[in-house]
Amino acid sequence: MSKDLYAHSLTLLTDLYQITMAYAYWKNGNAEKEAIFHGYFRKNPFNGGFTICAGLEYVLDYLNNFTFDDSDLEYLSSLKDNDNQPLFEEGFIDYLRQLDFQLSIDAVEEGTLLFPSEPFIRVRGPLLQCQLIETAILNIINFQTLITTKAARLKIAAKDDVLLEFGLRRAQGIDGSIGATRAAYIGGFDATSNVLAAKLLKIPVKGTHAHSWIMSYDDELKAFKAYAEAMPTNCIFLVDTYNTLEGVKKAIETGKELREKGHEMIGVRLDSGDLAYLSIEARKLLDNAGFEKASIVASNDLDEYLINSLKIEQGAKISVWGVGTKLVTAYDQPALGGVYKLGAIKNDNGDWEYKVKLSEQINKISNPGFLQVRRMKHKDGKYLADMLYNENTPLEKNSVMIDPNNSFRTKSINCDENSFDLLVPIFENGKLVYTSPTLHEIQCKTLKELTLIDNSIKRFYNPHEYPVGLEKSLHMMKLDIINQIKM
Amino acid sequence: MSKDLYAHSLTLLTDLYQITMAYAYWKNGNAEKEAIFHGYFRKNPFNGGFTICAGLEYVLDYLNNFTFDDSDLEYLSSLKDNDNQPLFEEGFIDYLRQLDFQLSIDAVEEGTLLFPSEPFIRVRGPLLQCQLIETAILNIINFQTLITTKAARLKIAAKDDVLLEFGLRRAQGIDGSIGATRAAYIGGFDATSNVLAAKLLKIPVKGTHAHSWIMSYDDELKAFKAYAEAMPTNCIFLVDTYNTLEGVKKAIETGKELREKGHEMIGVRLDSGDLAYLSIEARKLLDNAGFEKASIVASNDLDEYLINSLKIEQGAKISVWGVGTKLVTAYDQPALGGVYKLGAIKNDNGDWEYKVKLSEQINKISNPGFLQVRRMKHKDGKYLADMLYNENTPLEKNSVMIDPNNSFRTKSINCDENSFDLLVPIFENGKLVYTSPTLHEIQCKTLKELTLIDNSIKRFYNPHEYPVGLEKSLHMMKLDIINQIKM
Repeated sequence: MSKDLYAHSLTLLTDLYQITMAYAYWKNGNAEKEAIFHGYFRKNPFNGGFTICAGLEYVLDYLNNFTFDDSDLEYLSSLKDNDNQPLFEEGFIDYLRQLDFQLSIDAVEEGTLLFPSEPFIRVRGPLLQCQLIETAILNIINFQTLITTKAARLKIAAKDDVLLEFGLRRAQGIDGSIGATRAAYIGGFDATSNVLAAKLLKIPVKGTHAHSWIMSYDDELKAFKAYAEAMPTNCIFLVDTYNTLEGVKKAIETGKELREKGHEMIGVRLDSGDLAYLSIEARKLLDNAGFEKASIVASNDLDEYLINSLKIEQGAKISVWGVGTKLVTAYDQPALGGVYKLGAIKNDNGDWEYKVKLSEQINKISNPGFLQVRRMKHKDGKYLADMLYNENTPLEKNSVMIDPNNSFRTKSINCDENSFDLLVPIFENGKLVYTSPTLHEIQCKTLKELTLIDNSIKRFYNPHEYPVGLEKSLHMMKLDIINQIKM
Repeated sequence: MSKDLYAHSLTLLTDLYQITMAYAYWKNGNAEKEAIFHGYFRKNPFNGGFTICAGLEYVLDYLNNFTFDDSDLEYLSSLKDNDNQPLFEEGFIDYLRQLDFQLSIDAVEEGTLLFPSEPFIRVRGPLLQCQLIETAILNIINFQTLITTKAARLKIAAKDDVLLEFGLRRAQGIDGSIGATRAAYIGGFDATSNVLAAKLLKIPVKGTHAHSWIMSYDDELKAFKAYAEAMPTNCIFLVDTYNTLEGVKKAIETGKELREKGHEMIGVRLDSGDLAYLSIEARKLLDNAGFEKASIVASNDLDEYLINSLKIEQGAKISVWGVGTKLVTAYDQPALGGVYKLGAIKNDNGDWEYKVKLSEQINKISNPGFLQVRRMKHKDGKYLADMLYNENTPLEKNSVMIDPNNSFRTKSINCDENSFDLLVPIFENGKLVYTSPTLHEIQCKTLKELTLIDNSIKRFYNPHEYPVGLEKSLHMMKLDIINQIKM
């Protein structure tokens, strides 16, 4: 976490086996064989019906600085094998020193709805280079996508209420926190408490005072008044240090004094206890005292299920939600299982050999090809279905797609002018050809995307499955390859 | 995650409310009131019986660089309140610019066994400064301690087997990964796959090849032989790409060729399927072929429960365990709830006023004082019990301690020459007075500590509770304060 860590190149942010494989490819003369890899997920997180893709900006930043610096090369030269001999020959170190980044990369833009089996990234170029970047890309996309999707779920629960991200103290490391703040914002959060993240990401930051402020005074009223004196235009009083509803009354008393001086109390915050009951009673006290516009902010281990229940079943009078641990660590599923698999490799004749990774579990069998994802839209703009196809073969307008996890489930598809491809060019032969949108633009995209799928796909329990299939000839190719391997 | 993020000072790595409170303390003339804060956990993670404290080195690094740089101050100056006026007066910005770090800090050394209620850090000095550092300290200690404790649990399960950390691709961000690698090593892991982490932390790194290596060849045997040709001294063959036991046979064939050339195959790796059955069968094949020393490495969603079951109940023949996601994200409990509470504040007469934060939950009531933790030892060196006491009052040799969560549970304590204090000086009046041990030394300390408590405390299900209490006069003081607040 130290600043020193990041004074370094991130090129070594990879598993050693990527570098030992790179060495072996280099030794065997295969380093520059052309290959195609796809990164994708096998399952939506949180038992949900959708995923929101995120992290591409960080990937660009990482790839745009992809060079082995002197200290990286020195480190690799210092590694020893089991016989205490150098693990890598000097010729290989020189090869890495002169490595010319040549990959062509297509990716799904941040804020895009994504579903299992669909590549979020497609990497094409020298086999050795394709492998070296695998691990860092997965690290970045897995985490950003996970937290963005969690944030979007919280946004679905909170509807038009304000969402604040409060997770810094429980996040997994420093960029665990800053990355989570970024993803939370993309997913629909309004602001963060994390000052450094707000500064770096240029997003709104919020905060007032903690319990310790109250405890540093002899009594609560004195503490509220002292805070109001110091920050009259930033008053959200934390009312649960002793007795919550008594606290609300003292906040009201302080709010009246503030009003006499020409300032409005912004609201009160509840951080413990029965949030439904306390917010309903606090709302009455505030309304009766003429503070109808004062907000009630709630925090304390909130997640999308609890917000949903508080709003819909319990009638809580809360309009601002502070969410920490459950969001920034994706508490109920703290990792996304994104993988990166070989789709094809060119043989010595210059022809593509398509590849499938087998598994006894059907959803772990990879898809071969130079994959693209076509998304079909209804006339009203809503999304109908997605189809994976091999971009090396022409796509027919009227097609049939087959569920990759159930070959008996097929669907006729019309790839009309309303349909579009999800993977867009990012690097062409090593040259960056894409400009990242602003975080605000990405947030708008996420919120728009969420309006384009049915509520049944967005619900938290047993969501409807959005249709994703393989284009028929791709399905047939996959079947052929599997049968060949098994022979 | 970008390198740019870390070109900045980390002083703003805090919640905004720490800065708005700092501002209000400054406005009200209380900024330099002397205060005492304690950081502690309320519960061992993973429903376990112990915690291993970690993260202090990162805390030192953060605090040793604690200054607001120009861009931090410029950013704070730019923040606006609800009336679109500057949130902070320029005088406050100047105050921060000239801030002289004056805190005295005691902390528990890394690798030390710690239990609920026990401060891992004690901070004393100007109220404003105590608050500014709260959030970053919690971020660092919560995460490092969480993962170190998880790693120690894995070490308890794996016993003398080799443990490898494989989590980079699923970790929460870049220092989510590097921090996890560090914590895993402290907790007892032998090596990592993460090259950058290994380079920066100076710990061993391991890796051979992935499924994609096998898939880039027409058949598995050819792939093994090509790898052996390139890296004859680094051969652990991943055998489950197609059929695991057939894969083992091909590894053996390749191992024989290697042996003819004077090299030994290190082993085989299983990454899917029934690890017990496959490892037992693989062991037989290897032994029968004269490869008794070849290791069997296993990976695939391992955690301490699964390793325990594989070793003890299932008789798996695995000697090297690669652990990823479940370790680096602390999957079953991805956050530790460390908190930081006010223990005392000096009043205008220069006397300490002790403070308690109330709660309806008994384990959420904070402890007042200038707390220290005394650890008592049995003659054989094993730990007997820990007692929190107020260092502002002399400690008697024969004492009674009372369970903070159950006042009826008391224990006579003898603070003899074998007992020792856990909190050691780190900063004195802003000056660093502590040198961090090496990671290897911390790992040794962890492993030693684990031998000093009973197995019943270390077991995974319903562990025995290690005795922790409040020294009697501290307990009485706490009771008095609570009664005063309630009047």
